[in-house]
Amino acid sequence: SLVKAETKDQPTTGSRSQEKFKTLLIHRDGGVYKITLNRPQKKNAIDFQMYEEWGQALKEASDDKTCTLAVVTGAGDYYCSGNDLGNFANVPPDGIKAMAEKGGEILKKFVAAFIDFPKPIIALVNGPAVGVSVTVLGLFDIVYATDKATFHTPFSQLGQSPEGCSSYIFPRLMGSAKASELLLFNRKITAAQAVERNLVTEVFPDSNFQKEVDTRVKQYAQLPKQSLQKSKILIRDANIAKLHQVNEEECKVLVERWQSEDCMNAIMNFFQIIILI
Amino acid sequence: SLVKAETKDQPTTGSRSQEKFKTLLIHRDGGVYKITLNRPQKKNAIDFQMYEEWGQALKEASDDKTCTLAVVTGAGDYYCSGNDLGNFANVPPDGIKAMAEKGGEILKKFVAAFIDFPKPIIALVNGPAVGVSVTVLGLFDIVYATDKATFHTPFSQLGQSPEGCSSYIFPRLMGSAKASELLLFNRKITAAQAVERNLVTEVFPDSNFQKEVDTRVKQYAQLPKQSLQKSKILIRDANIAKLHQVNEEECKVLVERWQSEDCMNAIMNFFQIIILI
Amino acid sequence: SLVKAETKDQPTTGSRSQEKFKTLLIHRDGGVYKITLNRPQKKNAIDFQMYEEWGQALKEASDDKTCTLAVVTGAGDYYCSGNDLGNFANVPPDGIKAMAEKGGEILKKFVAAFIDFPKPIIALVNGPAVGVSVTVLGLFDIVYATDKATFHTPFSQLGQSPEGCSSYIFPRLMGSAKASELLLFNRKITAAQAVERNLVTEVFPDSNFQKEVDTRVKQYAQLPKQSLQKSKILIRDANIAKLHQVNEEECKVLVERWQSEDCMNAIMNFFQIIILI
Repeated sequence: SLVKAETKDQPTTGSRSQEKFKTLLIHRDGGVYKITLNRPQKKNAIDFQMYEEWGQALKEASDDKTCTLAVVTGAGDYYCSGNDLGNFANVPPDGIKAMAEKGGEILKKFVAAFIDFPKPIIALVNGPAVGVSVTVLGLFDIVYATDKATFHTPFSQLGQSPEGCSSYIFPRLMGSAKASELLLFNRKITAAQAVERNLVTEVFPDSNFQKEVDTRVKQYAQLPKQSLQKSKILIRDANIAKLHQVNEEECKVLVERWQSEDCMNAIMNFFQIIILI
Repeated sequence: SLVKAETKDQPTTGSRSQEKFKTLLIHRDGGVYKITLNRPQKKNAIDFQMYEEWGQALKEASDDKTCTLAVVTGAGDYYCSGNDLGNFANVPPDGIKAMAEKGGEILKKFVAAFIDFPKPIIALVNGPAVGVSVTVLGLFDIVYATDKATFHTPFSQLGQSPEGCSSYIFPRLMGSAKASELLLFNRKITAAQAVERNLVTEVFPDSNFQKEVDTRVKQYAQLPKQSLQKSKILIRDANIAKLHQVNEEECKVLVERWQSEDCMNAIMNFFQIIILI
Repeated sequence: SLVKAETKDQPTTGSRSQEKFKTLLIHRDGGVYKITLNRPQKKNAIDFQMYEEWGQALKEASDDKTCTLAVVTGAGDYYCSGNDLGNFANVPPDGIKAMAEKGGEILKKFVAAFIDFPKPIIALVNGPAVGVSVTVLGLFDIVYATDKATFHTPFSQLGQSPEGCSSYIFPRLMGSAKASELLLFNRKITAAQAVERNLVTEVFPDSNFQKEVDTRVKQYAQLPKQSLQKSKILIRDANIAKLHQVNEEECKVLVERWQSEDCMNAIMNFFQIIILI
């Protein structure tokens, strides 16, 4: 693409390609490829287009030789409110099964893009994070959060089940007694609690969050590129095949869940609540 | 059984089957299958009969379609003082080796019942926990504890070795430097320290422990049953074969330990101390 | 060896074999085999000789039937400043590639000695720890630290990559978000932060560090030897083959890194800084 051609292999002083994506802002500067989730009016909920574009952006950052590391953050007050339930609002003519299967394919591809991302990737969690935007944090290399951030994975409450490799990674971060509280029993935690649970690297007061994390990201982007990539591969490699297998299995269970009565009821209740409010 | 027939497949307002088990109280209510270890005069030490009955109760909870989740707690001030050393007090005519092997089989079957339990299982640790009652906590999905609880696994001190899959799970909960302190060097920890080490989900002041945990358990039991089970299976599945292998290996080492001079001396000293007091 | 013959199979009241090793002090007492890194004028940096001797000492402790456990500490203010960059100061006639390959072999053998060590091994971190002296801590059973200790693994900054099995163990101790901060992004942490990250068992005020840890080590050395060894093997065994594979892979990447321009530049800068100061 044109944008890619312009920036590839040459130092950039900052370029934007927000024209390219409808749901994301992209900003390249000093080795940093920054992805901003940009549906603030929807609390950055991930619709099918955002799943697709987010995956494409990761591919672009991976191929871009000027990019040392990738950063993900959210526009507005939310980091990301997770899967846009609007994805399930209109049942297509080929029925619920086809819709669930399509959703499973899109999700699997999205999560796989994180598993395979070969460079350091840093989340800057600027506000509340929900659902799949929380679970894929386990596939990031660094997670910095403002003290206004919260982390919530209300799967069973919605008749669903965990994704983003969280069924495998979360128990390894915090033990299964704490992981189960999040993944089975819908507990919402603060940023400080997420640090204790090893999901978040460090939390900062909201007032100087942006300044603090920008300074760090800039420093990190100056480190020897090859050492960073080789080290990341060492850290992740032992697990990559396993993670793809977990992703496959999680999506399979979720496709089945999406077709269950529990899930249908939960989603219908959700939309009713929205309407009533 | 009659008790089972009465409750299966129908909502219950609370039924008791304490007649069925000599060492346990069972209480079913609102999707909760509650097991109370009931040898308070022995600090709920696990004799051979309790191993057997506890395993049977888990089977019953597993088969009971009205049961969403299982809960384990202790009667009286103790949660559980671990393996009843009285199990080794009378050497049978076929000798120490046969006694140790019988003990190994009983223990292996007991631990396997936790590994295979397909529904969420919650420990309510109402007081001190010792030995195997601590190690199997790693196989629970949620562990709530009163601040009066302590956790102690004095294996090497008694010439023994870790069981309950703790040799595998504890280093994964808290790192091997902290796991070794517990499993090799007999350190007793408080409930707060057990939370830091990811063995316990949360600790509550003793004064409102029962009220707090009852409220949560009731809420959890209302969640969609299928989502809970499918999610638990996702979380545990990657490990089930490995856990059975660990259980097998741990029991093998322990059967050998039980026949060692170190262990004989430690047990004889233990009984002398009891007698002297 | 003579020293070994004198102490084997008999209780010792304390013997020293510092004549044997140039870079280490060895002290045997009451079942404890204590290794003191003894190049205080070089902050106990590990030159090729110390790698070799440290490995030999572990072999000796392993074979010594009077030894229940091994202890490692540093002479002077530092615990250990890591790989002595002087190892790379004089490029031999057979070139950089041969030098890097030799370094890789020495390192692999050194780390393997920790993976295979069959008895409990305890680190007493008496001051700052850097590089490989930090990463191999993940292979110790207990790590006690003074509050003056710091932990620093500046690999990418020097164009290098993680070793000591840290690419595998550190994410399992503290999650990858915290492990990456140390292993990719050169963050130096305090002893208290190392406890939070499960790398260190416990931290003590420097004023009573020696007294506290000596008391504990003495107690631990009185525990039944066989139970300790069997329990340690249970805890480590599931992983030993995997750890050797990780060690192999890490050393391979590092040999390649040592020949890279990034690394050459970093090392040359390092020596310039030394000279300028």
